[in-house]
Amino acid sequence: MLKKLELDRKEKFQEFKVSELGERFARLQRVCESMDIPILIMVDGWESSGKGYVINDLVRELNPKMYDVEVFDRLDKEDLKYPFLRKFWIYTPKKGYVKIFDRSFYYELMDDLKIKDEDLEKKINSIKDIEEMLYDDKTVIVKLFLNVDEKTQKNTIKELEKSELKSFYVDNHDIEQNENYDKYKEHFEKILELTNFENTPWNIIDSSKLKNASKEALGITIMEIEKGIERVAVSREDGVRNTRDYKPNEKPLEKLDLTQTITDEEYDEQLKKLQREVSDMVYKYYNAEIPTVLVFEGVDAAGKDGAIERLIRYVDPRLKKIHAISAPDQGELARNYLWRFYKKLPENGKMGIFSRSWYGRVMVERVEGFATENEWERAYDEILKFEKQIYDHGALVLKFFIVIDKDTQLERFKDRENTPDKQYKITSEDWRNRDKWDEYIESMNEMLDRTNVDYAPWIIVEGNQKKFARIKVIKSYLEHAEKRLKELEKNK
Amino acid sequence: MLKKLELDRKEKFQEFKVSELGERFARLQRVCESMDIPILIMVDGWESSGKGYVINDLVRELNPKMYDVEVFDRLDKEDLKYPFLRKFWIYTPKKGYVKIFDRSFYYELMDDLKIKDEDLEKKINSIKDIEEMLYDDKTVIVKLFLNVDEKTQKNTIKELEKSELKSFYVDNHDIEQNENYDKYKEHFEKILELTNFENTPWNIIDSSKLKNASKEALGITIMEIEKGIERVAVSREDGVRNTRDYKPNEKPLEKLDLTQTITDEEYDEQLKKLQREVSDMVYKYYNAEIPTVLVFEGVDAAGKDGAIERLIRYVDPRLKKIHAISAPDQGELARNYLWRFYKKLPENGKMGIFSRSWYGRVMVERVEGFATENEWERAYDEILKFEKQIYDHGALVLKFFIVIDKDTQLERFKDRENTPDKQYKITSEDWRNRDKWDEYIESMNEMLDRTNVDYAPWIIVEGNQKKFARIKVIKSYLEHAEKRLKELEKNK
Repeated sequence: MLKKLELDRKEKFQEFKVSELGERFARLQRVCESMDIPILIMVDGWESSGKGYVINDLVRELNPKMYDVEVFDRLDKEDLKYPFLRKFWIYTPKKGYVKIFDRSFYYELMDDLKIKDEDLEKKINSIKDIEEMLYDDKTVIVKLFLNVDEKTQKNTIKELEKSELKSFYVDNHDIEQNENYDKYKEHFEKILELTNFENTPWNIIDSSKLKNASKEALGITIMEIEKGIERVAVSREDGVRNTRDYKPNEKPLEKLDLTQTITDEEYDEQLKKLQREVSDMVYKYYNAEIPTVLVFEGVDAAGKDGAIERLIRYVDPRLKKIHAISAPDQGELARNYLWRFYKKLPENGKMGIFSRSWYGRVMVERVEGFATENEWERAYDEILKFEKQIYDHGALVLKFFIVIDKDTQLERFKDRENTPDKQYKITSEDWRNRDKWDEYIESMNEMLDRTNVDYAPWIIVEGNQKKFARIKVIKSYLEHAEKRLKELEKNK
Repeated sequence: MLKKLELDRKEKFQEFKVSELGERFARLQRVCESMDIPILIMVDGWESSGKGYVINDLVRELNPKMYDVEVFDRLDKEDLKYPFLRKFWIYTPKKGYVKIFDRSFYYELMDDLKIKDEDLEKKINSIKDIEEMLYDDKTVIVKLFLNVDEKTQKNTIKELEKSELKSFYVDNHDIEQNENYDKYKEHFEKILELTNFENTPWNIIDSSKLKNASKEALGITIMEIEKGIERVAVSREDGVRNTRDYKPNEKPLEKLDLTQTITDEEYDEQLKKLQREVSDMVYKYYNAEIPTVLVFEGVDAAGKDGAIERLIRYVDPRLKKIHAISAPDQGELARNYLWRFYKKLPENGKMGIFSRSWYGRVMVERVEGFATENEWERAYDEILKFEKQIYDHGALVLKFFIVIDKDTQLERFKDRENTPDKQYKITSEDWRNRDKWDEYIESMNEMLDRTNVDYAPWIIVEGNQKKFARIKVIKSYLEHAEKRLKELEKNK
């Protein structure tokens, strides 16, 4: 039984002790654990506004195994090598767990008085996306902003400077902020307003009295978690909502000529030359510090790995990494499905190749029922936002889909079974998937239709003849890489 | 069937094509995959000696999903926050996989002409430990050093400077090394000799002719892998070797007075004050940039988590992390058992608390047979080396073992079953473990006897009364932390 505190209105928070509120939070965390609900609490605010104090009070009664605190400071050199949100995404809480962000992705916006509007807009869009995705994925998100007036901040800084631990509490930035209080105030208000999203609003807490601020932070957290629990409970009862209104635009896999071939002579003549060009192109990207993300999808036995092998044969192995994506492990399952891919993004100048990818969400997870309809339906949009972030960071994003017809697949399956060296490539799962051929083709058609965008195009590769497919993959890569390189160099 | 190349002597390598040797390597990798053997190839050598060229040739025929290359450069600020070997350890290959280190932990030694003998010795010892551990854990380790004479190096640098990708190939360090060739030569020879360990010797490759160097690198790799495969096959046939000669020195759990208590008044009087002292101490450690590693072990229901909770109640949550260790996941199982702990080590100034730990190797893994006798027998020594590395890095390492008697455990199990709020804490596994009480006690006695060292002492905590145990934990922490702080400040 949950002890219910009467916390329907903010005014009530102060009637309780910090420890009472803390215990309530701890009990709710336990409920969230059993319901697989992640909790993310962002504590932002003025420098020297008492973030540390409030965070201490927030977590005191929690099971120490079930939470931790990430401190975010100015992005360092390493962070700048990756898309803006990667650093935060990889620290998002797993199911049932409480994560406190001491400052967060808002740091970069709030601390930069001179941020350009264009930059600001881009970053806010990314933040909106990440918060929406996490919210849709059941996460309880609590955004707290600790507010102090100029005088209080000044006095606090003076106090803290006397402390033995001065370096931990106060630095020049605190003082600079206090000296430019009005400018920062205006800037903060602008950003708070722009990021006060419907499902993830800001809570402004007056922290001139710290104990009261702690109570308010706890009270808000409790109310938000209660709302979150109800939301998840209700959505479970409702089951699948019928929001799906996809009408096939086109079926990209229907109009293909899979029988295209090239001769052995053409292949031999072109291959090595093209592979050398790929190697050169990758060096160029390294020099220009542009990251590359390549996705390879396709029906089973379409020849994805063979095509990857040919593509990267002469690429400097220090500049590329191949990620063979299989079923997520325990730790990955406890997070949003994109989490493991954020972790694997290549740094600037390098190439990350995904043999299978996040598109599993709308193919295998859809067909096999590992994701609910709501989840995979939402994923088309989420995936595009994810790819947009990578593109906006300045990457080349390219997706290959290799297709073979059903007969060719059968031939290759049999060949794999009969060739000792290839047996490891064929499992009973492949045969089971084959039985669902039509369902897979349907999901693939929808995926190719809905996620083919300028900034991350699909290249459909006719794969009945492996050599034709391989050459097409390499040529397409070279063509797109060349174009993107020019584009990025022009915008420099 | 494996195609056997006649590679019994180095002289033979040059008779084959690079591609033939590469294909042989690729086939052996497949064998290693099926035998769960990790392969680690370190390519070190002079600057501009052709490491990139040789690495390219090494991996060309491999399945691109089954290898990758890590490039190690000078340690950066982030790396210095952790024990020396952490950075490398976390990149060691998983079972069946090939990892190429472009330079490695030797970088730090080889590039520092002025390294102090004391420092050098410490680092070489750490390296010896890591190589031994990996070797004992079935890893094939190939150490290649590409050697060029002064003139060849000079010419290569000149050539590379003309390249479009100059920045990738050559920097000032290359030039500086060439200018001081003789000094470096002497230094390299010293280090190569000191680290030419019996099981992991160096292979010096003349790389003045790059194609020949590639062949030699491939040939050596093939021979080393063949040796490794044989070694693993033989050790499997032999089963458990009877090398175990442990004679109990003492049984630390036998002579305890578990009935010690304190009164509620004493507890209440002391607790908060002590908790505040812990909080202050953690801040002091933060200021002094000293990391803390605390291990909590004990019989089931001994009160580990309760003790941790009391210990850290007023500790700034930003300065500590609790790691609740349960069974390793798939990715962790594919690596040496210490891998996941290296990943979790606290950075300088922070506290990492392990609720259960690497000692699982010599307790649950031993008793339940998850590790072979060879593996857990070896682990006592490996664990001490691991802890020594952390200590040598300048950390406080402290281990708590909480004990209760069998009757008290029964009481607590029953209490957990009967209290709705505590039911999650008791599972059928706990009851199964209880059935093996004597076996567990035996393994614990041996562990406490063999791994109680000055640099990482065990504190045995009599736990029948929870309050007594909690106070003892806190007081012991404070006492040891105080001592270590003084010691480290003196040595500064």
